[in-house]
Amino acid sequence: MGVSFDAHPDSYRHWRLRVDGPIAWLVLDVAEDAGIVPGYELKLNSYDLGVDIELYDATQRLRFEHPGVRTVVVTSGKDKVFCAGANIRMLAASSHEWKVNFCKFTNETRNAMEDATAHSGQTYLAAVNGSCAGGGYELALACDHILLVDDNSSAVSLPEVSLLGVLPGTGGLTRVVDKRHVRKDLADVFATRSDGVKGRTAVTWRLVDEIAPPSAFDQAVRDRARELATRSTRPDEPGIQLAPLRRDVTDDGIRYDHVSAEFDRAGGTVTIIVRGPSEPPSVDGWLLAMTRQLDDLVLRLRTNEPDLGTWILKTEGDSDAVIAHERLLLDSLDNWLSNEIIQYYKRVLKRLDVTSRSLIALIEPGSCFAGVLAELALAADRQYMLDGPPVDDPDSELRAVITLTDANFGPFPMGNGLTRLESRFYGQSDDLKQLHGTFDAADAMAHGLVTDAPDDIDWPDEIRIAIESRTALSPDACTGMEANHRFVGPETVETKIFGRLAAWQNWIFVRPNASGPDGALRRYGSGQKAVFDRKRV
Amino acid sequence: MGVSFDAHPDSYRHWRLRVDGPIAWLVLDVAEDAGIVPGYELKLNSYDLGVDIELYDATQRLRFEHPGVRTVVVTSGKDKVFCAGANIRMLAASSHEWKVNFCKFTNETRNAMEDATAHSGQTYLAAVNGSCAGGGYELALACDHILLVDDNSSAVSLPEVSLLGVLPGTGGLTRVVDKRHVRKDLADVFATRSDGVKGRTAVTWRLVDEIAPPSAFDQAVRDRARELATRSTRPDEPGIQLAPLRRDVTDDGIRYDHVSAEFDRAGGTVTIIVRGPSEPPSVDGWLLAMTRQLDDLVLRLRTNEPDLGTWILKTEGDSDAVIAHERLLLDSLDNWLSNEIIQYYKRVLKRLDVTSRSLIALIEPGSCFAGVLAELALAADRQYMLDGPPVDDPDSELRAVITLTDANFGPFPMGNGLTRLESRFYGQSDDLKQLHGTFDAADAMAHGLVTDAPDDIDWPDEIRIAIESRTALSPDACTGMEANHRFVGPETVETKIFGRLAAWQNWIFVRPNASGPDGALRRYGSGQKAVFDRKRV
Repeated sequence: MGVSFDAHPDSYRHWRLRVDGPIAWLVLDVAEDAGIVPGYELKLNSYDLGVDIELYDATQRLRFEHPGVRTVVVTSGKDKVFCAGANIRMLAASSHEWKVNFCKFTNETRNAMEDATAHSGQTYLAAVNGSCAGGGYELALACDHILLVDDNSSAVSLPEVSLLGVLPGTGGLTRVVDKRHVRKDLADVFATRSDGVKGRTAVTWRLVDEIAPPSAFDQAVRDRARELATRSTRPDEPGIQLAPLRRDVTDDGIRYDHVSAEFDRAGGTVTIIVRGPSEPPSVDGWLLAMTRQLDDLVLRLRTNEPDLGTWILKTEGDSDAVIAHERLLLDSLDNWLSNEIIQYYKRVLKRLDVTSRSLIALIEPGSCFAGVLAELALAADRQYMLDGPPVDDPDSELRAVITLTDANFGPFPMGNGLTRLESRFYGQSDDLKQLHGTFDAADAMAHGLVTDAPDDIDWPDEIRIAIESRTALSPDACTGMEANHRFVGPETVETKIFGRLAAWQNWIFVRPNASGPDGALRRYGSGQKAVFDRKRV
Repeated sequence: MGVSFDAHPDSYRHWRLRVDGPIAWLVLDVAEDAGIVPGYELKLNSYDLGVDIELYDATQRLRFEHPGVRTVVVTSGKDKVFCAGANIRMLAASSHEWKVNFCKFTNETRNAMEDATAHSGQTYLAAVNGSCAGGGYELALACDHILLVDDNSSAVSLPEVSLLGVLPGTGGLTRVVDKRHVRKDLADVFATRSDGVKGRTAVTWRLVDEIAPPSAFDQAVRDRARELATRSTRPDEPGIQLAPLRRDVTDDGIRYDHVSAEFDRAGGTVTIIVRGPSEPPSVDGWLLAMTRQLDDLVLRLRTNEPDLGTWILKTEGDSDAVIAHERLLLDSLDNWLSNEIIQYYKRVLKRLDVTSRSLIALIEPGSCFAGVLAELALAADRQYMLDGPPVDDPDSELRAVITLTDANFGPFPMGNGLTRLESRFYGQSDDLKQLHGTFDAADAMAHGLVTDAPDDIDWPDEIRIAIESRTALSPDACTGMEANHRFVGPETVETKIFGRLAAWQNWIFVRPNASGPDGALRRYGSGQKAVFDRKRV
């Protein structure tokens, strides 16, 4: 049945979520025997995908169900241990694609914590009340402020390089130098020293923001949490409930209310159809529901369907209804919920951007690639638009259009800080604002909004060939190519993590020095030392 | 004996260099049977490391021996073929480290062509007079202007993804979108279409700058070359000769006049000693000679000594002499030769930055880490400075110092556009200008210029442990870690090529889909189709 991303605080195995006025407590207390797959024990608050699915659920619920929360304290429920990072035995036993996909999801959740701090007035505070290693420190790095207990033993550390022969790949290397501005020679020492750095030195090196002795630690955390809460102007309003998602999963696809996916296993493709709103606009209506469904679908497809390498993106519905709905939200961004929904859709679009699948948008009569949904087309690697009537109804007067609205000019930046339109036309001097409006196929071609616009005679063959030739390519080469093309122009901590750090980690993960039978990842904890091919590459 | 990087136009096998007033012609005419190692034929103007060593030599001689040259026309001496890119059989038969090192060197030469255009008034013009595929198009991409013959058959193409299952890894993907601003969906089509794009479409897509029919091509090239030459203010002065390098190569090291390297094969280290000037300052004196020697050493070590994974950087000499020498050059940057030498040293420092070896600088009494040589220390991953007398002479009054001069505040930017000091203190608000001056060990520690400053009692053990613990780490993890730490902050086309594109390519190179027995790279030309694991990672 594959991995489910459903979770609820009432049934968390690994986290406790407690809301106390403007401050929420997110307490990591991993159940050792509750790994998401069998074969390892989650000792020392180490985590696997199951632990991170709960964390992701908590970060989402805090934003939607607890709008009054202004500070989120991330801490540990165990004695002397904050978090030991990703579970090594899980990593060592996992397939390459599992490891990479797991790292991507954990990266996205950590980015979402920073996004909550930046855009939702929910500031994350790491209350590091014990040893904090590897992915544990990377979790702390995603918080806005790190408070470390000064007990002569609790250290922050990145032992991946020295103990496992891999990188701190969940943003660790990048955030240390690019976010926290640790001097790079000290970062080098830190990342090669398995016992890490503690106490005053950790502050001096900028690895943590402050320290407090054990006797004063809890009070220091509460004081800092209250201080951070004063930065926010978040209203103390009731939240909305994120009800369980309804979905129908079969061997051939997944269907939700507004989103569906049809698998072609022989062809190696998925056709994803996003349907526009059928109800009148309401703040908590279609966009939130569709976004949740699309988010769930992307996560499920990435994790459970690695063989389906090409995603075909379609929409169905009424462009005017899409625009009316998004207008309501974009006109009320001072409303916390409108803002949350827009921010959430932004994050789901970013998930698409870093998804290692080829994305092809098909824009046909009856589609509604307008505003928020036009972003789906712009997120794709290619856009094909039918220039003529529907293929199965040559007498119809229905024609495909694309409509660009305010939604395409700012609210949904990519990880590189540019809109998808800015990325598309990167370095071209044209005034993008003139692209506001509705385009038929010929106009869209002329303005560079689509890759090609075949007529109804050519459409079936051209689309078939485009898809078949894509699925015939090396999946690895596609992943590398797309990762290079999608993020043109400026780089940020976020794009560096997905583009540079993750690429090096992927390389290291498949090298015998890490994952071979004598490699460091496989030999960790065995009592035997790793054997390395010493050639530098 | 390993690879030699010595070359001279009189003995080129693959290129012809002709200088005609302000215009130089660099004509690729590869000798099929003259591969640098046996086992393949260099058909269709395809290249291997040997071809690129000659190209590198030509780019250097153009700058130093032919200062009057203002336009360099890169073209082919073969009929209907410009260049088919890196030789596939060579790639398929090469070890992983050979492939990666070869790509790095070719990347550096292409960056140097852009550097000549930007900083030496020698603009590169690609006169693409035949089919131009893969690395051939990447060579053209490194030129400032691409003129393609419009003969109904000559296309530019990047067939790596579709035919070989690897990336166009010599800057191709990056330069197409980030330098030439090709729309990213068109870049996607282009990079997956083995037959490429020709004629007017190539101009429309921004893949080339102009086209000309065969009958008008030669004239168009000459016209464009003359037009590009007018941009330059390069003086028509006689150049200097780059005489053959003197070196003494043994099993234990390499010695030049100003640079030497001692190998510790058991320990896996090289100690590199750069000696300061012993003669009075002269423009074409010590810095040029030392730079050439260091360049040659770096290239030889990278190619021939992959097992020596840690480089220990030392200097010997008189800091005042270093400063007097660099002062002469920095005060005469309007002199073409002074400028060339400074630019050349800049490029050699950049080679160090992208070298996949751990770099540790040892700053001891008698060293001369001043100005230009202080950059060597700043390029290192760590800096250790002895706080006390020489270990073998406790009564000596000699002490180690570091001196920062104008040379450390601008003339030698890294690939990310920052100086090494700016990279070191990235995101820290201190005024760097206050670091101008001379620092003893305590001062250097206090100002963050060194990683540690042990006294003469602790020095031997601390250095030994630092080196031994470094060489014990996974070489792959070190490479990935250093690639992430060294380039903090902003990214450029150059850092994207070395950091993002090269990392993905390295990953793809070791995946079975490319390099396995049924992989695309191995099966190319065999008549058998590649077999792919279709899982997307």
